[in-house]
Parts: sequence; structure tokens; C-alpha cells
Amino acid sequence: MILRYDRLAVELPKPKNPSPNDAAAVQELLGGKFGEMSTLMNYTFQSFNFRGRDRLRPFYDLTCSIAAEEYSHIEAVSYAINLLLTGTTVRGKDPVPAPLKDATDARNTYHFIASGQTALPVDSMGNPWTGANVFSSGNLKLDLLHNFFLECGARANKMRVYEMVSDPCARTMIGYLLVRGGLHVVAYAKALEKLTGVEVTKLVPVPELSNDAFPEAKKLQDQQKLHLKLYTFSPDDYKQAGIIWTGNHPEDGQPLEVIQGGFQGVPYPKLEEEPQLNSPGADDYDPDMFKDIAKKMGMKM
Amino acid sequence: MILRYDRLAVELPKPKNPSPNDAAAVQELLGGKFGEMSTLMNYTFQSFNFRGRDRLRPFYDLTCSIAAEEYSHIEAVSYAINLLLTGTTVRGKDPVPAPLKDATDARNTYHFIASGQTALPVDSMGNPWTGANVFSSGNLKLDLLHNFFLECGARANKMRVYEMVSDPCARTMIGYLLVRGGLHVVAYAKALEKLTGVEVTKLVPVPELSNDAFPEAKKLQDQQKLHLKLYTFSPDDYKQAGIIWTGNHPEDGQPLEVIQGGFQGVPYPKLEEEPQLNSPGADDYDPDMFKDIAKKMGMKM
Amino acid sequence: MILRYDRLAVELPKPKNPSPNDAAAVQELLGGKFGEMSTLMNYTFQSFNFRGRDRLRPFYDLTCSIAAEEYSHIEAVSYAINLLLTGTTVRGKDPVPAPLKDATDARNTYHFIASGQTALPVDSMGNPWTGANVFSSGNLKLDLLHNFFLECGARANKMRVYEMVSDPCARTMIGYLLVRGGLHVVAYAKALEKLTGVEVTKLVPVPELSNDAFPEAKKLQDQQKLHLKLYTFSPDDYKQAGIIWTGNHPEDGQPLEVIQGGFQGVPYPKLEEEPQLNSPGADDYDPDMFKDIAKKMGMKM
Amino acid sequence: MILRYDRLAVELPKPKNPSPNDAAAVQELLGGKFGEMSTLMNYTFQSFNFRGRDRLRPFYDLTCSIAAEEYSHIEAVSYAINLLLTGTTVRGKDPVPAPLKDATDARNTYHFIASGQTALPVDSMGNPWTGANVFSSGNLKLDLLHNFFLECGARANKMRVYEMVSDPCARTMIGYLLVRGGLHVVAYAKALEKLTGVEVTKLVPVPELSNDAFPEAKKLQDQQKLHLKLYTFSPDDYKQAGIIWTGNHPEDGQPLEVIQGGFQGVPYPKLEEEPQLNSPGADDYDPDMFKDIAKKMGMKM
Amino acid sequence: MILRYDRLAVELPKPKNPSPNDAAAVQELLGGKFGEMSTLMNYTFQSFNFRGRDRLRPFYDLTCSIAAEEYSHIEAVSYAINLLLTGTTVRGKDPVPAPLKDATDARNTYHFIASGQTALPVDSMGNPWTGANVFSSGNLKLDLLHNFFLECGARANKMRVYEMVSDPCARTMIGYLLVRGGLHVVAYAKALEKLTGVEVTKLVPVPELSNDAFPEAKKLQDQQKLHLKLYTFSPDDYKQAGIIWTGNHPEDGQPLEVIQGGFQGVPYPKLEEEPQLNSPGADDYDPDMFKDIAKKMGMKM
Amino acid sequence: MILRYDRLAVELPKPKNPSPNDAAAVQELLGGKFGEMSTLMNYTFQSFNFRGRDRLRPFYDLTCSIAAEEYSHIEAVSYAINLLLTGTTVRGKDPVPAPLKDATDARNTYHFIASGQTALPVDSMGNPWTGANVFSSGNLKLDLLHNFFLECGARANKMRVYEMVSDPCARTMIGYLLVRGGLHVVAYAKALEKLTGVEVTKLVPVPELSNDAFPEAKKLQDQQKLHLKLYTFSPDDYKQAGIIWTGNHPEDGQPLEVIQGGFQGVPYPKLEEEPQLNSPGADDYDPDMFKDIAKKMGMKM
Repeated sequence: MILRYDRLAVELPKPKNPSPNDAAAVQELLGGKFGEMSTLMNYTFQSFNFRGRDRLRPFYDLTCSIAAEEYSHIEAVSYAINLLLTGTTVRGKDPVPAPLKDATDARNTYHFIASGQTALPVDSMGNPWTGANVFSSGNLKLDLLHNFFLECGARANKMRVYEMVSDPCARTMIGYLLVRGGLHVVAYAKALEKLTGVEVTKLVPVPELSNDAFPEAKKLQDQQKLHLKLYTFSPDDYKQAGIIWTGNHPEDGQPLEVIQGGFQGVPYPKLEEEPQLNSPGADDYDPDMFKDIAKKMGMKM
Repeated sequence: MILRYDRLAVELPKPKNPSPNDAAAVQELLGGKFGEMSTLMNYTFQSFNFRGRDRLRPFYDLTCSIAAEEYSHIEAVSYAINLLLTGTTVRGKDPVPAPLKDATDARNTYHFIASGQTALPVDSMGNPWTGANVFSSGNLKLDLLHNFFLECGARANKMRVYEMVSDPCARTMIGYLLVRGGLHVVAYAKALEKLTGVEVTKLVPVPELSNDAFPEAKKLQDQQKLHLKLYTFSPDDYKQAGIIWTGNHPEDGQPLEVIQGGFQGVPYPKLEEEPQLNSPGADDYDPDMFKDIAKKMGMKM
Repeated sequence: MILRYDRLAVELPKPKNPSPNDAAAVQELLGGKFGEMSTLMNYTFQSFNFRGRDRLRPFYDLTCSIAAEEYSHIEAVSYAINLLLTGTTVRGKDPVPAPLKDATDARNTYHFIASGQTALPVDSMGNPWTGANVFSSGNLKLDLLHNFFLECGARANKMRVYEMVSDPCARTMIGYLLVRGGLHVVAYAKALEKLTGVEVTKLVPVPELSNDAFPEAKKLQDQQKLHLKLYTFSPDDYKQAGIIWTGNHPEDGQPLEVIQGGFQGVPYPKLEEEPQLNSPGADDYDPDMFKDIAKKMGMKM
Repeated sequence: MILRYDRLAVELPKPKNPSPNDAAAVQELLGGKFGEMSTLMNYTFQSFNFRGRDRLRPFYDLTCSIAAEEYSHIEAVSYAINLLLTGTTVRGKDPVPAPLKDATDARNTYHFIASGQTALPVDSMGNPWTGANVFSSGNLKLDLLHNFFLECGARANKMRVYEMVSDPCARTMIGYLLVRGGLHVVAYAKALEKLTGVEVTKLVPVPELSNDAFPEAKKLQDQQKLHLKLYTFSPDDYKQAGIIWTGNHPEDGQPLEVIQGGFQGVPYPKLEEEPQLNSPGADDYDPDMFKDIAKKMGMKM
Repeated sequence: MILRYDRLAVELPKPKNPSPNDAAAVQELLGGKFGEMSTLMNYTFQSFNFRGRDRLRPFYDLTCSIAAEEYSHIEAVSYAINLLLTGTTVRGKDPVPAPLKDATDARNTYHFIASGQTALPVDSMGNPWTGANVFSSGNLKLDLLHNFFLECGARANKMRVYEMVSDPCARTMIGYLLVRGGLHVVAYAKALEKLTGVEVTKLVPVPELSNDAFPEAKKLQDQQKLHLKLYTFSPDDYKQAGIIWTGNHPEDGQPLEVIQGGFQGVPYPKLEEEPQLNSPGADDYDPDMFKDIAKKMGMKM
Repeated sequence: MILRYDRLAVELPKPKNPSPNDAAAVQELLGGKFGEMSTLMNYTFQSFNFRGRDRLRPFYDLTCSIAAEEYSHIEAVSYAINLLLTGTTVRGKDPVPAPLKDATDARNTYHFIASGQTALPVDSMGNPWTGANVFSSGNLKLDLLHNFFLECGARANKMRVYEMVSDPCARTMIGYLLVRGGLHVVAYAKALEKLTGVEVTKLVPVPELSNDAFPEAKKLQDQQKLHLKLYTFSPDDYKQAGIIWTGNHPEDGQPLEVIQGGFQGVPYPKLEEEPQLNSPGADDYDPDMFKDIAKKMGMKM
């Protein structure tokens, strides 16, 4: 089970140049074969399906910790997409002047027809994420190898999308993903090492370009050491992840650290209304009607 | 962001008659169009994409609370499938006697080839869950109407799968889903009522058959009042869900209640190893090697 | 535009042995790549998209006539499936004895979970029909060649499904399809002949086995000459189809005939309720309530 | 069975600015999840599959009537797409100057490669319509609820595509769809009301924006009262639809009316040849050759 | 089994104007329903699955010969795509200036995210090729008819993509495909003739436009007679293809010829590195390290 | 380009117990995500797309060699499936006694409807192989890592299908695949070693079970040393694969060897006719008619 809290892992600046095609490109990191839906669902199902977990608890705990963090990644990518799409059409309620006219040339028309200028579980070509992306063989060595490859493939995608979009909102989010995804690359490499004795961490980085080439990532590594800290994303469980996440980072030699719990995070960015899309609509709804109820229930509104 | 804790929402008895075809049928409730992957992902994306949430906070909070609970549902269905598949093949490591022979006639061969006799995000025909199942129009009234319909459709599926499988493990899980899914039906109906004034709750139940016809569901309603309690599944957030979840239940008239946080739950059931599938394999791994590390880190192994 | 009338093209006997797996096999003729959804939609879109139709009117009219008939084919296959599924589970409203137990071993579980034991636009493996099956190149010669091939492929499928199922309900329907599909094979061959001068009709039958091998088909050919009569399925239009549908049948040399309008048909077979599926449910609905309205409106109920 | 007649429901002006990307956007209303292929096929299959129809005849008749009308909608959307694509490339037969050059940047290249600049059963991203879009649970209340939701979702899509394209051809067609789709929203709401007593019609419009905001729709409502008239689209059948379609319209209070039969409609717009696409080709075909046959058969050519 | 040799069938000029959207359009000829993946896989599976091949050896041999040639077609299309994509982004290793910025507006973003600016088995809309495109009924007449149709459909696609792209690299490749695909059209027509006596070759060309309209194709036909020569693409086998490939070409009456073996071809074009994509990366790899090994093994490096 | 020769890599015994469900299971090794279509197409596209190949020639040559061998694997799996399906239905031409009756309960009905009891590019659930299975990032290290993982995943699937089917025909084929796939695992591991210095070969076997557990595989390793010999599958090219394929086998320490060219192989097994499926049909075809032509052409018939 999970408890959700209303915070985003990373603070995203408001885009300087909202852009539907930038948003469309970033969708690859959400609903693509190597997007965050894939990492989230792969590790989640592997954790549900983990046989013999008493004997192999540290590997189970590591998988659970990373799985839980991936939720914060689909969230961060979604918010970046939402911000990149906010304000890209003419605001207003009159359909006659064709306020969504520019959307006709946008690469991903689902953003404007199926959603209210927001994220969907699709990739950069608008193809939906599919459960066929989940690998859960049940063989620990094979699953770990898969996860190591998946994170490396995801890293390549992040690097390339970074090279496509230059807006600070997108790049801040991708920098964050590069750091945390990079940590997951190392984590699965270390798990394979612990299991087999082969020095898999020496393969990293795959692809070869270091995170130092991405200023937003470098800053998070330099200032917050976010490439070193494995969070369990659990109040009390998954402590044995620390049996795997020990020693030093293979790239800069700094000591690794396990932190019980999740990131503190920041409040979600505000998503403005898009009235021409009737998003959210409900203009007649009167929140005051329910103030009394709220007061009695001790809520602040 | 989420925090995960290592508990299952409902205690599942060990199956009396593990059965691959029962497991295949139950997959509909996990990866089908109306399965729990769909409810989880619909509400999750709607919550990320919710525009104008300050003005419409109670609806946002309700969506977030239910979204968070759905995670416990994919978990519960997955464990039921895993238990139904455990022990359905001959145990052993010698491939020569064809220990998976019976799997050749199983309806879902992915359970035996792609997984270690465990759950996958596919439906009862083995077709993968797809992001195309996510509806997130951004229009509040339309999204709520969708959610109300989705929960009713999901309810129909649960009733029918219940009628297909009689093993107590599956039925305990489905009984639980009927109760909680039934609560979600009412919750979205109430949200539509609050928004529009139309008495949508009077439409329930859809389909017409009451939960009382399902003994496992009835027991949870009678003994634990689980059809009345909305959990926020959050340490501190989503309190305004309570502005919608007020009054009495439309079927039995009992008072509704909001509970901050999640279920206490029970420990996960044990998933035995399936050695002929190399699941989990790793026979040479020596957990003792890491006991010292664990001791220093203050863990119990 | 169309006008629909409440009649079925062919009288289907009630199945002797209703069978989910027979129904699953017959689905190929509805939602398969070569099923009736494909013939219906191919010709329908080709007719909407027909450029230069003034100059090439007879080909347009032929396509429209056949397109309209195909509607009666999806209907006939659907009813056969529905009848084959009717009564295959235990009737009753109590879910506890698992009235759908046998469905757990059925090849197509969608019949029992997604539908009330009725037809769906899927093939014999449960895979949905897709618009990718529609070919509409706009080049007349190529579209006719496609249609000729499509009908031959459809014919092969019909022959094979006939060899799989022996129930009279299914076979009566397939016999009908073999005759009418055979007529469409000849029609497109004749169209190619008219367009190019090449004696395409001499290629038939493809596959080589004659309809005479199928008693239900032979009967319709012998008694009703249904292999000779092209119906326009229109009150007044599509007359120029007769410019192509002239001469004699390539197999038995009998004269071809065009008939303005559609088949007379027979009343739809009765589809009994399946209460354990809540299909149709609505037990509380009181038709008498509306008798007065009906009376005023001059309807008989 | 159906009878087809060679008329289009609505007169479409020739586009002022034919545009491939406008055509691509409009495809959502044809082959999208909420497009007219979906409404057509949902109600068609529900009508074939309707169990217990004697007892619940009015609901069956309503479904059949609307199903039959939807055929005219796929037709209308297809013709609008065809007109928007007509003349968008350089006419001529010489491939050397790259007459389709501009198509390289068009969003939907299938329009130029797979078709002769005409409609296909795909959505605004070029993804094919799929039978997975058909919902046919067999439970009447659930199917009606689905249909009500489907029509509301379709309405949102129509509104948004209207806001994307400003060409009068597209907007005339969409205005027509908004009116007739709006009528279907009300029809399914009334059906639910009749079945359950809950005032579902008070929920409309979903989304909240009135058809009055769309001049082409408003005109059809004001002048032809097209939002009030349910057509049975049958020569003689489906009369009991009138038991449901009674009373007044929930938005403007005007009296509802049932009309036996279909629209009169207008002749199909002329689709010019596109010779660079070999559409239709057949330049050597000599229609005169068949004039004699036609004369004998009493046809006018 | 196959032996591969490192040569390309046709010499491709370096593109004058590399263009992602040209490359995207050409993908239809690789991974589209009528692309070379389809012809390759159809004939390959038909050859594996050919029953009764002793009795019908010439048809088997013909299918095998053409199947083997199709490999050279997927190769030729892939190289054309690769060349059209080479150099379309800013070279360099620094991600900060967004070297892939232009890719954000490219129609096929997979070229830049999933590949290193190279070909993928997808169509012009980025949808993946699927095994559902393979037709292998086992009935010889039907399979030949299919193949004849498939080649005609493929021919239409080639003509249309030729009309979309004007770069000499793409057109040289398409001209080659038109000639060889045209030969395959005739080959399957002749096979049907041999089998049935019907003069199917008289139907060609479908569509009607002659290869003479395409200068690059005409040149290959005039100078190299490439429309007349069937290659067995085998060292010693498939000789009986010559029993079908006899007589004269139906369009220009020149004598047909069978050649044992494959084309001589030309060296593959050089594919430059794209460092911003880390393609191929491996900058630290030192080929000199392995020179000694190579020398001992008698290789030239 | 390729040259094809009419030989199968491995001699397959005629099945003792032909079985549709065994054949359906084996399909996973052909058209599954980890089937031979995937290995073939992954390495083929990676070889076409290989940038910087002069600098990294040994890796290119290795990829080409393995890609070419994979063709023999899709062939071997297909023949095994074809043999397992041969004779599984009643032979004869009369459809009336329902000769395909048993096929109604077969898991893969496509084998009987879409094919003449032969292989299709689909997986064990009948889902078609898709181009989405091809990974071709262009980054050498990442592509090699992918290939290493892909081969390990394929190995797990082979092991599991071996455990499902016991017929000697299937097992001989799988034994062969285990040996050759195992060699490919090692080959990609060695390539990664050469590129990075990390001892990736020490990870094998993944999954942990040795090929020695599979008698048919063990025999090929013991008697023919087939786990040691890399074939270039080219008359003259791809020699530098030998720079990578050097040293000893990581499991048994025996010396590795490169062989220029392909396997000698054996004649294809005979595929009997299945007349009830009209496969191949063409009963009227008279091969004698063409004997004269053959004689003149110097062929033996």
C-alpha cells in the first residue's frame, strides 16, 4: 500500500516559451518504452511477484524502494508537460475565433482533444504506453540485468530529449531524472555485483557521456549529492536496500548513503485554467456553499 | 510523491485449488479495460492534470484519495493471481520430465514463459493494459462522469469474475474489491451531485445486484463497515475529500466517514519459490555474507 | 444514409449444442482480418472516397450495393454467435455457486466478462478488429483487385470455420455467407473484367473447393439461386451495378440477375435473458407504466 | 438489414482553404475513441446483442434508431475530410516535379500514401479505430450509462476540433454533429430516467458550453429544430423509441418529436479526381462501351 | 539458411538535402503494411510453410527467390533513410546548445530518440511493422493472388512516396524498387497464369502508370534490363523458378531471363558518426589494441 | 544482400505426438518479444544502422554474423511448428464431417484459419510480432548491453518452453537454440568485455541453469562443439568477428573458434499436404506440362 503526499520532488520553473512540440517530445520520458511509466511498472510488478524474498530480502527491498521513487518521476514528467502546454492557446470561451487553431499543427493533437492541455500516458509519437513494456521473469539475475539495461536505455532517452528541448522547465526536470536515474543504474549494477561478484558498476556510464555535461544535473549532484542518496520512500520498510547500496559511487568515489523515507519536495506548481477547453469548467460551482461543512470538519479552505 | 509500506490491504487465504485458468480470469481485474490498472492510472493522471484545483479543491482531494487507494487494489489482485499460480506445476530443477507440461494447455502461457508464475499487466485474454484506457479530459464534470461509469463497469467485471472462480483466495479478494469499488461508485456519484445537484447516487447499484449477494463482500460491510469509510491514503493531505464524502450511504442509509491515512493491512502472503522456472534462482547467493553489514546498519535479517 | 429494418437475412436454427468455443471460432468471420467487419468497412469507405464517380458510376454503384449487403452479414454472424452462447452457463441470480464456472476454460473470456454472452468485434483469438484492415487506395483497379483478393481470403476463412464447427446454427449462417461471399468474389472479378478485359472470373473459385461441397450453401444456390442475384440494398439507387453484374455465372453458367432493394429476411431470433450476467437486468422496470403513452402514440406493445 | 440511399445528411460547402492538417484533426471525429465509428459500432453491437428485448422494447428501439443515424455521421465526417483534402496537391500525372511534396510535412501521411487524399478509419494521430472501443455489457442500465458518457465525451471532442479548424466545410459538419450528438446525449439521459427515475437530463450539457456558442449548430437548432427530432431511420420499425423520446428538451423546453424514417438529405458533394495519385485512374475505361447495356436496362448514365 | 555479403544492391548518391521528414515518408516503404518488411516476411513464411512442394516445386522456387531478394530491399530502404537522416542535426558533444532542437518538429521523433538518426521497422506515421501483415494461407492459388495484390499495393506506395520526395538518394532507391517490385508483380502474375491459364499478366501495370514515368526506374530498365532478370539469390538452389519466369515481359515484349545467384552490388555507403547522439560513442576504444590479434588471424584492418 | 540455400540447420525428427498446443507454445520462440524474429531483426537493423563502422569494425562484423545466423533460427522454429501441426486434423476433402473439429479447442486458432497448419509470426498467445521489439539506439555500448540482455531473456524463454513440451521434434530444435543462443550470449558478453574491460562473461549463464541440464543441447556441445564455433554466415565477409570471438569459453574453458561460412545443414523435412485446408490445393495442376521446359533448361524435376 502507499500513502501519497501532495508535493513534487523537484521545483520546476515556469516555462519561458511554452511549446506543444516540446511537450510532445517530453512525453517519451513519460509513456515511451523507456519512460517513467515503464520503470515504475516494471519494478512495481517485480516487487509484487518476488518469490523467495525472505532469502533475498536486500534485493526485494532495493526494488521496492526504487519502485516507490518512480512514482515521483511520472509525477515530475507530467507536471513539466502540463506546464509546457499551459497557455499555448488563446484563452477565452468563444469557440468562433478558433482559439485552438495552432494545435492543428502540433505533433500531438491528443493534448488538445483528449486532454485539457495536459499529460497522457503516451510516447513522443502519441502511441500509448503498454503493459507489454513490463518485464517480470521472476529470475532475479535476469530481472536485475533487465533493470540495469532499462535504466541505461532510459538514460539515453533522457539525454536525447534534453538535447531537443532547451526550456528551463523541461531541463530542470530532465536534470533531476538524469541524476536519479543514474543512481538507479548504479543501484542495479551494485545488486548484480552483490549477486555475482562481477564488477558491473565499472560499465557505467552507459551511454558514455557523464552527467557533468548537463548543468542542471551537475548542480543537483554538486549541491545536494542527489546521486549518492538512496531513499527508501517508506516510513519504516525496505531498510535492507542498504545492504546493496553501500560503498562509494563508481564515478566520483563519494560515499553512498541510504535515507529512510522520501524527499521533502515542494508544493505542486499551479496549473491555470484553460477555459476554451472547458478545463476544468464548472464555472457555476460555488465553493462557498461548502465552507460551513469545512469549518465544522476543521479544514482550512 | 508516495511512501510505500509493506502490507497488503486484505488477508488472502491460501488457495484450495491453485488453477492457472482461474488466475487467467482474474487478470481481467488487473489489466483489463476496467481493471485496477485502469482505475489507478485514470485517477492518478486526472490528479496530476487537475486545472483550477484551488477553486475546486474538494474534487481534487477526492480524486487523489481514491487514486492512492487503487495502488492497494493492483497489489491485492496481483497477490491473488500469484497465489492462484503458486504450485500449479511440478517443483524441481530437472527440465527433462517437462515440469511445465500442464502449462501448455493453460489459457495464459505468459504466466509460465514471461513470468515466474506471477501476475502481469494483461487482461483475461493476455492482451496488455494500454495507456489508451486513461481518460483525462480536464473537464471536471466529464471526468467525474467517466469515473462513475468506469467504476460501474469495473463492478460488472468483478461480479462476473466472481461468478467464474470459486476459490476462497480469489473470492476474498473480489469481495474486498466489490466493497471498495462500490464505495468509489458512490463517491463519484456524490461528487457529481455536489457539482450539479442531480441525485446521481440514486442510480446505484449499477449493475443492479447488491453487494449483499456476495458473502465475502457482505461480511466486510457488516463487520468492518468498509463501504462507509473513505481513507485519504495520505499522512496529512486530501482532507477536503470529506466535503464530498458526507451524509449517508444511498443503499443502507448508514453515516459515511472519512479516515485520514491508509488501511493497517496485513503482511504480504509468502510466495514460495518455483525452482523449475528459476524463480528466483540465485541458489548460490549466500545471505550470511551480508549479515555483518546488516548488523552494523542495525537491521534485523 | 441508411434505413434499417428489423429483419435478419437468413433463418438460423436454434443451436443443438451451444458452445463457447464454437462461438469463439465463429468470431473470426466477424472481427477477423477477413471477417465481415472488414468487408463492410472496406467497401463503405471505398464508396465514400470514390473519386471520379460520374465517369465510373457502375463501379461505384456495385461497391455501394455490396457495402450495404455486408451490414446484413455482420448481423448474421453476430446472431449466430449470440445463439451459440445462449444458455451455455447456469441460469440464476445467485453468484455463490459460480454459475459462470465453465467460462473459465472458454477460449474467449470476453464473451462472459465484457459482454452478456454475445458477439464482439474481435477475431477468433479475441483480438479486436482494427481500422488498419481497411484498404482504400483510391485507385480503382487496385481497390477492385484488393476486394477480389479480400473476398477470396474471406472465403477461405469461411470454409475453414465451417470445417471446425458442426452445429446447424453456425453452418446455416456460414452456408449463407459462402453463397453471398461467393457472389461478391464473382462481382469484383467481373468488375475487373469490365475495366481491363482480362477474364478474371476464370480464376474462381479461390480456394478451389466448390460451394457444392457445403450442403447448406448448395441448398441456397439450388433452391433460391442466391448465388445469381445481386441486390442493390437500396430503395432506388445503385442501379448501374447492373452494367457489371450481367451475363452468366462462371461456375454453372446460369444467368445473373439484379434485384432492386434488399432481402425480405426473417424476424430476428429471440435472445433469452441471462440473469446471472445481469443481462439485461432491469428487473424492476415496469413496461406497463408506459402502456398509456404507447396507446396514445398508436403503438402496439 | 439496411437499405442505403445516395444522399448526405448535411450540405457541406466547398472548403475555402483545403488543408491536410485540418483534415487530420477532423479524423478524430471519425476514427477516434470518441469518434463516429465508435458511436456507430457501439449502438449497432448493443442492438444485435440486446437480450430480453420484448420486455424492454422501447430501449431496444431507441438504440436501433440512433445506431442507424450514426451511419450518416461517419459519412458526413468522411465527406468533410475528403473535401478538405481535395486539391491540396499539385494536379498532374508527371511524378518528376514531386506533386505531393507538401504532403511530406502533413501530419497524416496515410492520406497521401494509403488513400487518394481521402478519409480513413483512423484518429487525429493516424492510429486506427479498434473494436476495443465497443462496449456491450448486456446490462441495460450499464450500457445506457456508457452511451450517455460516450456521447458526452464525443461532444467534448467535437467542441475542441471546432476550436481547431475554422473552414466552413468542417464547421458546418461539426455544427451538425453537435446538434445531433446533443440530441443523442439527451436521448440516453431520458432512457436512464425512464429506467431509474433519476433526472439524468438535468446533468446536460456536458461539457457545460451550450450549442448556442457554435453558430452553425445554433442555426440548425433555430431553423430546423434538429435538436428536437428523433428519426427512426427505418421505414417501419423502431416506433417505440417514441416512448422514451417524449416531453420537452431539457435546455430550451421545446417539445420533442419522433419522425419515422430518415433525413431527406442532399446529393453527395462531387469528389474531383486526383490524377497524380492515380485516383481513380482508369483513364482508358470507355463508359460508352456500356451505354447499350444501360439503355436496354433502362438506366440513365 | 542464408549467407550474407556486405554489399548494397544499388548505389545511392549522398543526399543533397538531408531531411527528417523525407526520411519519415520513406519509412512507409520499409515498415508500412505494403513496405519491404511485409514483402520479405510474407514470402519467407510462405516458403517455410509451403506444403506439397515436391509436386509444385516451381512455385516454391519462385517464392524463395523473391523472398531472398526482398532482404536486399529492406537494406536499400534502410540505407536511404540513414543517409537522409545523416547530418540533419548539429554535430558536437555538448548537449547544452540543444543540438537536436530541430528534431522537436520532425514528424518521426523515434529517429532521434530511439535510434541514432537511422531506420526503424516503422511506417511513415511511426507505427511499428507487425506480423499481422503476413499472409500465409497455405493455399497456393490464394497465396499467389495475395502476393500479386501485395506487390501492386506496394507499387502504388512507391509511386506516391516518389512524388513526395525529390532528393536523388531517395529517388534512386525508389526507382530501383519500382523496377524490381514491378518484376515481382509480373512474376506472381505469371505464376497465377501457369497455375490457372488466366492471363493475369495483362492486368499490369497496377496502378496504370508505367515505370517509364520515373526516370531513375526507366534508366535501370533501359540500361541494365533489370525488369527482365529474375535472380535466384542462391548459390545453387531455386532453379525451377525458371519454369515460371519464361517468355516475354508483358509491357515491352523483351525476353525474360533467370540468373543464378544475387546482384554484385556496391559497397555500403559510409554512415558518419553522430556524436551528439552518442552514436556510436565508444570514443575510448582503441582499435590498435587488437591489431596484433588481427595480424595473426590474417585479417586486414 | 543475402544468398539463401535450401537447407535446415538442424535435423528435426518427425513428432511422435503432433499437438496444436505444443505448436502454440513453441510460437513464443518465433514471434514472442524474446523470439527469433526479435533477435534476427534487432541485429539486422543494428547492422544496417551501424555508424562509425570503420573504427569499430570487429563489433560490426560480429553483429552481422549473428544477424545472419538468426535467419536459420526463425527457419528452424518454423519447421518445428509446422511438423508439430502436421497431421493434427483429419485428412480429407469433405468439409461435412468437420475435419477441423479439434481445432476449435486449440489455443491458437490462427494455425487452422489463417494458415494451413503452419507457423505465423505470432507469440504463444497469438499476438503478432511487432517492430516495437527492435532496439537500435546507435550507441554501441548500449546496443551490446541490450543484445546481451535480449539473448539472456531468450534463453529463459527457451528453457521454459522446453519444460512445457516433451516431443523430440520440439526439444531437438530447442536444444539447438539453447546451444547457439548460449553462444550468442557469450559473444555479446565478450564484445562488452573488449569494449569496456569489464568481465561480463562471468555473469553467464543467465538464468543460472547450465545447458548440460538439457540432453539435446548437451549432445550438440559434447559431440559437435557447437557452443564454441562462431560462423560468419558469409562467403567472405565479417572476418573481424574473430577479434572478439577469441579465447576460451567461460563455462568449460574450451577454445573458441571462428568458421567462415554457414552450417552445412540438412534437407528440409517434408511437409505433407493438408487437403481439408486446401493446402496447397492446386490438385489440377499438371507438373508434367512443364517437363519439357525444365528439360531444355537442364533442370531435374
